Amino acid sequence: MDSASDKKALKKEIKHLQKELLTLQEPLKRSGVPVILLFEGASASGKGSMIAEVISELDPRGYQVYTYGSASEEARRRPFIWRYWQDIPARGLMSVLDHSWYDAAFSAADESEARRLLDSINVFERQLADDGCLILKFYLDISRAEQKRRLEKLAGDDAEAWRVDESAWKQNREWDERRELVEYVTERSSPQHARWHIVPNEDKRSGTLEVLRVIRDGIVSAIDHGAPKPLPREQRGWPLLEMPRLRDVDLSPAITDKDEYDAELKKEKKKLSKLHSLIYREKIPVVLAFEGWDAAGKGGAIRRLSWALDPRGFDVVPIASPSPEALARHYLWRFWREIPRDGHIALFDRSWYGRVMVERIEGLTPESRWSQAYDEINEFEYELSRHGAVVEKFWLHIDSDTQLERFRLRESTPEKQHKITDEDWRNRDKWPQYEKAVDEMLQKTSTEFAPWHIIEGNDKKYARIKVLKEVRKALEARLGV
Amino acid sequence: MDSASDKKALKKEIKHLQKELLTLQEPLKRSGVPVILLFEGASASGKGSMIAEVISELDPRGYQVYTYGSASEEARRRPFIWRYWQDIPARGLMSVLDHSWYDAAFSAADESEARRLLDSINVFERQLADDGCLILKFYLDISRAEQKRRLEKLAGDDAEAWRVDESAWKQNREWDERRELVEYVTERSSPQHARWHIVPNEDKRSGTLEVLRVIRDGIVSAIDHGAPKPLPREQRGWPLLEMPRLRDVDLSPAITDKDEYDAELKKEKKKLSKLHSLIYREKIPVVLAFEGWDAAGKGGAIRRLSWALDPRGFDVVPIASPSPEALARHYLWRFWREIPRDGHIALFDRSWYGRVMVERIEGLTPESRWSQAYDEINEFEYELSRHGAVVEKFWLHIDSDTQLERFRLRESTPEKQHKITDEDWRNRDKWPQYEKAVDEMLQKTSTEFAPWHIIEGNDKKYARIKVLKEVRKALEARLGV
Repeated sequence: MDSASDKKALKKEIKHLQKELLTLQEPLKRSGVPVILLFEGASASGKGSMIAEVISELDPRGYQVYTYGSASEEARRRPFIWRYWQDIPARGLMSVLDHSWYDAAFSAADESEARRLLDSINVFERQLADDGCLILKFYLDISRAEQKRRLEKLAGDDAEAWRVDESAWKQNREWDERRELVEYVTERSSPQHARWHIVPNEDKRSGTLEVLRVIRDGIVSAIDHGAPKPLPREQRGWPLLEMPRLRDVDLSPAITDKDEYDAELKKEKKKLSKLHSLIYREKIPVVLAFEGWDAAGKGGAIRRLSWALDPRGFDVVPIASPSPEALARHYLWRFWREIPRDGHIALFDRSWYGRVMVERIEGLTPESRWSQAYDEINEFEYELSRHGAVVEKFWLHIDSDTQLERFRLRESTPEKQHKITDEDWRNRDKWPQYEKAVDEMLQKTSTEFAPWHIIEGNDKKYARIKVLKEVRKALEARLGV
Repeated sequence: MDSASDKKALKKEIKHLQKELLTLQEPLKRSGVPVILLFEGASASGKGSMIAEVISELDPRGYQVYTYGSASEEARRRPFIWRYWQDIPARGLMSVLDHSWYDAAFSAADESEARRLLDSINVFERQLADDGCLILKFYLDISRAEQKRRLEKLAGDDAEAWRVDESAWKQNREWDERRELVEYVTERSSPQHARWHIVPNEDKRSGTLEVLRVIRDGIVSAIDHGAPKPLPREQRGWPLLEMPRLRDVDLSPAITDKDEYDAELKKEKKKLSKLHSLIYREKIPVVLAFEGWDAAGKGGAIRRLSWALDPRGFDVVPIASPSPEALARHYLWRFWREIPRDGHIALFDRSWYGRVMVERIEGLTPESRWSQAYDEINEFEYELSRHGAVVEKFWLHIDSDTQLERFRLRESTPEKQHKITDEDWRNRDKWPQYEKAVDEMLQKTSTEFAPWHIIEGNDKKYARIKVLKEVRKALEARLGV
């Protein structure tokens, strides 16, 4: 077979596959499988033109290309995986990535740094795969000599020369070091649910053909059977803190003296205000999550806390039911979007724990998924903590009688009526189910790096002061003051 | 009256107003009036604590605080007003701004730079006000001596000293220069729909009281009567280009020879590819909007164009019906979000022109608003162009018979059936209304800085080549090559 007709046949097959991908977009959308197509490779390995081939026939409503350069300031002030969470695809759509979360690992200073990054990466990919995401990772492979040839060609072309910067030449000079690291990393990040495809790309046509085939096969299989599932998690051995059962919590603590309360409030506010300033200066991110029974006093506690804080350094993040955008993605997506930057405080009014409470009890999420959430949440909070964040969680606890009393008060007070809805009454009917779910949540997600605090809330004054004190203590511990 | 009881009365009134603001949140939400509370002032003028007072009793679901520091890289690579567009409030909610779009103007090098910024600012505020937004702007005013006193006090406090940087001291040394510029700017940006309130804030209590009163009065009035409306626009004298009526367009041009088409396509692709590289290098942003009759070939034209482009340097932005998030804001908000950064190309598959086509014809927007859109759109595109963007718009034109033919072909081709819907047939019935609307749009929005190109689309090959050529010519003109 002569080479010209060979080439022509290749070209025809490529075109055919490109059109096939187009026809797969509709069934993919219906299947609801989100797809990540990730392209890595040395400089001049052909990522850009490969992506152009992949998308060439696609309907642009079905995919989005993301190019990751060096991290922006916003990204540098958050866990390194943060910016990639922003761009995960919605169900049935594709994210096409030019460079990715592997960049940092491929250019790590040494294997130990690479390993540290791999911890985050492997958790991230597993979480997406557990959620049904198809992850196809391509490393476009060329030789050192071929890279040199391509760089020289680019450098000799007026319009392209600027693309070849010193870092590309450096890569060519230090080829072997990088090569070793790439092998080290790819070998440790190729589980069945997110396998690496090392694609020889010296000959771009055959490289393209291989990539297109892998994508076609992956998508066809995912449409029929779903994306490959991860193996069950190994027991991670989270450093869990012992928590009491809710029914064993003594709810009698109270502050009955108004002057004592005012004095305490003032004292704690002053201390917190100073600490906030230090937190800001030391660029420590702080994540505080507030959960609790309806009418337990979350809002009031958050408000008192916020009075001690500089409004330029904190945000209250109210969590309501998810938007359609959020529903179409991994449930942690919307919380990752709200992660505070270093030095800032986020007060979550309700949080990611909805997953194992309302979503569990109302049957909004199947057990197979919410039962994974304890690990997923610990992983999430661990990631924040590892980045240096203070993570503290508060369960505002009251008994059923107190709730009833407050519901009735709300109903009979005109300006509070909007705070009580039929849903609150329906939730109240499910008190025993909630109690069980909350107990399980407290047992499984109170960790040394992200502890739960049960706040005795029958007495509002006592509860508010206790929240202030616990936050103050956590900040003091972190700052070592 | 003694000063202690004076103070106490002030404090009580402040608390009362804070609670009143809380009770206004519900009716504000129902009224659908978006509110911007903007705080400016010299260093240490008390913006942070003022904002803390304003939000202290508010339900956090009803507002968001934004603090603007120096612009991020993402912001610096776009028109300066871009980052403020991101944060405009949804209807019925409040954005509370610590610093704002006035920062740049207050620290401009001279009056001519300030004037240039004011052009953008005044357009921005008018557009928001035309959309019903209440804009309350506060300048917290202190004397030079008071600033010095406060800075010295901060600098003497271990926990706060880091807040006082060299720029604050510089401001104090160069007080008069800044003062003059602030006066120059505020005098030129105080129309009835976005008046400045210069609030003496040497005594923080009385300052707070004044601010709270203005906010309360503003919101109460907006709930009852809507936010203050801008005066009608002065005739701006846009540099309009003469456009033919659609019915006068000769649709006969065609490329009948397949080889000629292939050769042209190849030639134009090659040229465009080079130009894209230069555009990237020169950091020129490019905005291309595609509109046209259903089945006129927008998708095909965009695809051919994208084949010539490096996927890392462009995005196709498909515009569908607005999300609830977008519907709750000024209609240009979602387009501002998609503005390409310098050096990138955005291909809009449909665009902001939906405002004067589908929204007009389907009655989705009242005439009072869509009729303003011609000016608003010219202002929008002028802002992009002034920032250095290439802005080109394409109307893909076919006649009614050709559309019918293509609709029927779609219906009879299985893999194209999803591209034809009942809505397409309904739109077709409204051809005369659309033709009238499109003619008006072309007459009123084809400007020297953002021209429309009518693409004769009865012959697809001709149309595709013409789009490539027009884009190529526009880029050449901009690059001067």
